[in-house]
Amino acid sequence: MFWEKEFETLRRKDLEKLQVDRLKKTINQAMESPFYKELYAAKGITAERISDVKDIRELPFTTKQDLRNHFPYGFLTQPKKEIIRLHSSSGTTGNPTVIFHNRHDIASWANLMARSLFCAGIRDTDVFQNICGYGLFTGGLGFQYGIERLGCLSIPAGAGNSLRQIKLMRDYGTTAIHAIPSYLGRLYEVFQAEGLDPRKDTDLRIFVIGAEPHTEEQRRRIEEMFGVKAYNSFGLSEMNGPGVAFECTEQAGLHIWEDAYLIEILDPETLEPVPDGEFGELVMTTLDRQAMPLIRYRTRDLTRIIPEPCACGRTHARIDRIAGRSDDMFIIKGCNVFPMQVEGVLLRIPEVGSDYRITLEEINGADEMIVEVEVKKDWFNGDIARLEKLTRVITSQIRDEVLAKPIVRLVEPGAIPKGKGKAVRVIDKRKQIATQIQTT
Amino acid sequence: MFWEKEFETLRRKDLEKLQVDRLKKTINQAMESPFYKELYAAKGITAERISDVKDIRELPFTTKQDLRNHFPYGFLTQPKKEIIRLHSSSGTTGNPTVIFHNRHDIASWANLMARSLFCAGIRDTDVFQNICGYGLFTGGLGFQYGIERLGCLSIPAGAGNSLRQIKLMRDYGTTAIHAIPSYLGRLYEVFQAEGLDPRKDTDLRIFVIGAEPHTEEQRRRIEEMFGVKAYNSFGLSEMNGPGVAFECTEQAGLHIWEDAYLIEILDPETLEPVPDGEFGELVMTTLDRQAMPLIRYRTRDLTRIIPEPCACGRTHARIDRIAGRSDDMFIIKGCNVFPMQVEGVLLRIPEVGSDYRITLEEINGADEMIVEVEVKKDWFNGDIARLEKLTRVITSQIRDEVLAKPIVRLVEPGAIPKGKGKAVRVIDKRKQIATQIQTT
Ligand SMILES: [Zn+2]
Ligand SMILES: [Zn+2]
Repeated sequence: MFWEKEFETLRRKDLEKLQVDRLKKTINQAMESPFYKELYAAKGITAERISDVKDIRELPFTTKQDLRNHFPYGFLTQPKKEIIRLHSSSGTTGNPTVIFHNRHDIASWANLMARSLFCAGIRDTDVFQNICGYGLFTGGLGFQYGIERLGCLSIPAGAGNSLRQIKLMRDYGTTAIHAIPSYLGRLYEVFQAEGLDPRKDTDLRIFVIGAEPHTEEQRRRIEEMFGVKAYNSFGLSEMNGPGVAFECTEQAGLHIWEDAYLIEILDPETLEPVPDGEFGELVMTTLDRQAMPLIRYRTRDLTRIIPEPCACGRTHARIDRIAGRSDDMFIIKGCNVFPMQVEGVLLRIPEVGSDYRITLEEINGADEMIVEVEVKKDWFNGDIARLEKLTRVITSQIRDEVLAKPIVRLVEPGAIPKGKGKAVRVIDKRKQIATQIQTT
Repeated sequence: MFWEKEFETLRRKDLEKLQVDRLKKTINQAMESPFYKELYAAKGITAERISDVKDIRELPFTTKQDLRNHFPYGFLTQPKKEIIRLHSSSGTTGNPTVIFHNRHDIASWANLMARSLFCAGIRDTDVFQNICGYGLFTGGLGFQYGIERLGCLSIPAGAGNSLRQIKLMRDYGTTAIHAIPSYLGRLYEVFQAEGLDPRKDTDLRIFVIGAEPHTEEQRRRIEEMFGVKAYNSFGLSEMNGPGVAFECTEQAGLHIWEDAYLIEILDPETLEPVPDGEFGELVMTTLDRQAMPLIRYRTRDLTRIIPEPCACGRTHARIDRIAGRSDDMFIIKGCNVFPMQVEGVLLRIPEVGSDYRITLEEINGADEMIVEVEVKKDWFNGDIARLEKLTRVITSQIRDEVLAKPIVRLVEPGAIPKGKGKAVRVIDKRKQIATQIQTT
C-alpha cells in the first residue's frame, strides 16, 4: 500500500534519471537567486555539466552560515509576490535562518508529509492529534497540512496541557499522535495520575515521534507504555521541516524521499562520500522546491545509508536514526565516533545506570577513549568477578559499535558530576581544551 | 476590485435565490445528522417547505446547549472518514463545543477568509503577520489558510513575544497584521521602549482586528499609533471562526457573506425579526457547510443591519460592530439597551474618565436607568454650570443612542468601586437580585 506507488517504487535507475532531471531544473532555478547566481557564475557552473547524480560532487556546498550571511532574500529565486509562507528560526537578535515557500512548495511539502504518514500506516480513517507547537515552528503547520492532505481527522491540539490532551484523545477517539519523545513520558505520568491506562482507555495505535534525538530503547518503552507502534520522523527546517524521511511499518530505518531530495553521506573531515552503511554527515539538495532551492546543504546531522532494499517495496534509500551532529563527532584510533553510538550501547545493558562520560586522553603515548559508566543503584555487591564481567561486556559491545576499543571504568551511581542543564558527555584532554559536547 | 465579483456583487434578488437553493440543500444535508434528523422528523420539516428565505422562520432554533447536549457527533452528517479537521473549545471538564469540517468546508472557509482580506484591501503583494494563537483556536489556522489562499506572504508568528514580533516585522517588511485589539496597545509600548516608531520604522499599512469587543475610538487610536488602516473582523467558532463578516475599505460596517450564511436579526425577547437598522440578536444558518451545518443558530451576539447599500459595490448586507451579548441586554422604558451602547457614547466625550456604572431601579413608581459617570481627574473646578452642562450633553447623547432617557450623575475619579477582575457595569435593583454584567 503506497500513497504514490509510481514514485515510491520507482526502479533505482529511473529514480536516478528523475533526480538528474530535477537537479538540472533546480540548478537553473537556483541561479535566479542572488547567492547561487554569483557563486555559480564565479565557478562557471551550469546545469549542462550534470549528466549523472554523481556530478553533484562538482558543486560547492551550502552552509547555515551562508544562509545567515545572505539573510533574508539572498536565496530567494522569485519575487515576494509569489511567496505564500515563510518559516524562520526564533530569537530576537542576529540573523535567523528563514525558508520561503511558494504555492507549489507548500503543496509539495504537504504531499510529502501525507506520503510519510501513509508510509507509517496512517490512513484517512485515523484521528490524528498533532501535539506540537504551531506558528513558525515547522512541526505544527507541516504536519497539519499533511494530515489534511492524507484525509485524517486532524486535531490541531498544539503543545502542552496534558490533561486537555488526554481529554481530546478520549473525546474524539484519537488513534494517532505526533509528539516529541521526551513529552510522552510526562504524558504517561498524567495518564497514571488520572487513574487511566492509555492501552485500555484510548484508541491510540500509532505514534509519530521526531524532532529530538532518541534511541531505539526509548521507542520501545513508548510503545509499551501506550500500546502503540511508534515511528520515527526526520526533518529539518532548511529542508521544509517534517516530511523529509520517515519510517515505514518495517521500523527498520527511515525512507528518505529521493524524488524530492538528493542525498549524500560524506565524511565530515574529508567531505568525501563514505561507503553505504558507514556513518557520515548528511548533505542534501532539494529537487522539488522552487522559491528557495538549496544545493549540497550541509545538515551536520550524522547518519548512514541502510544498504539493503526494504521489505516494504519502497525503493527510496533508508537512513539510520540520527546518530548526532557532525560537530559532536570525534576521531579516536582513526575511527569516527559519535557519542550517541556509545549511549545507544549503554542503554541496551540493563545493569547500566543513568549517566556516563567519555574522556579522550593520551596514555603511554597512545590516544585512548575512557568511558566511565555508572552502574545501577545497589548493583555492586562486592563481587569483583561480576564487576570484571560487566566491564568486559561493555568494552566489547562499544568496540563492536564504534570499532575502537575503549577503556571502560564502572563507577558508583552519582560518581559522575552533574553540570547545570545538559550533561557534558565528552571531555577531550588531547587538545588541552575541554570540548564540551552536549547531548540530551 | 473584488475577490469573487460574481458572488460579492450579486443582485439582492439573485442572492436570495441562491440562498433559497443553498438553504434547501443545507436542510437535506442537516437531516443526515442524528440531531436534525430527529428534530425535523418530529416537526414534519422538509426542504420542500422552503420557497423563500423568510420560510426559515418556520424552523426551530439551534443553541449552544444543543451542541453541548449532543456532543460530540450529534450534528455530524458524514462518517468520520470524510472529516479532515475539528476545532473545539478548550477546557478540561464538561462538554466543549466542537465543529467538524470536511475537505469542502476547509476550502470554502479558506476562500471566505481570502475574500474577507481582499475586501479590506489586502493583496497578494502584502506580507501578512498572523499574531494569533494557532492550534484549536480558529484564528490561527483560519487566517493562515485564507492568507495563503489569497497569496500573501504569510508569517505564522503566533501570539506573544512582542520583541520577536517587531523583529519579524522589520526583517521581512510586514505590511499587514492580524491581532486582537487589546494586544496592540502593549505592542506599541514595546516599540516605544525600543526607541522605534511603527509609522517610520515599519512598512505596516493594514491591521485586521477582531475576536474582542472594541469601540470605534479604540480603532482610531490604533490607526493613529501605527499609521495604518484597521479593519474589523467578525467570526465565531460555531460559524467556522474568522471569515464570517469583514469590513471593506469604506470602514462602515462589516459585510456578512450571505452566500455562505443566512442571517436574521431577532428581538432576543420575542424572537421576532427587528426592522433593518435596529439592534437585535444575530441568528445564523450555514449555507455552504457540509460536515456540520447549523440552522438558525442563536449566536447571542447583538448587532444590527446597516440598511443602506455600501459604496464599495458589494451587495451583501453589512452588520454593525457587535454591541454586546444578548444575555447582557436589559429593557428599560420599553427599550432594549446594551451596555456597549452606553459605553460607546461615553468614550466619545473627552471630559469623561475611565469608569461608569449603570443602575436600574424603581424611582417614584417608574423604572429608571441611572448612569454614574466618572469625570477626568482635575476636570471639576467648582463650576456648577459646567457640571450641569456636561450632564445635559451626556443625557441627551445616551437618549439619542438607546432611546430611553437616563438619569446621569457625574462623580469624581475613583468614586465607582472597582471589583476584582472585570468591571461590573450594570446593577439591576428592580429584580432584587443584582445582575452582574461583565464587559471588558
Ligand atoms: Zn520500507
Ligand atoms: Zn462595502
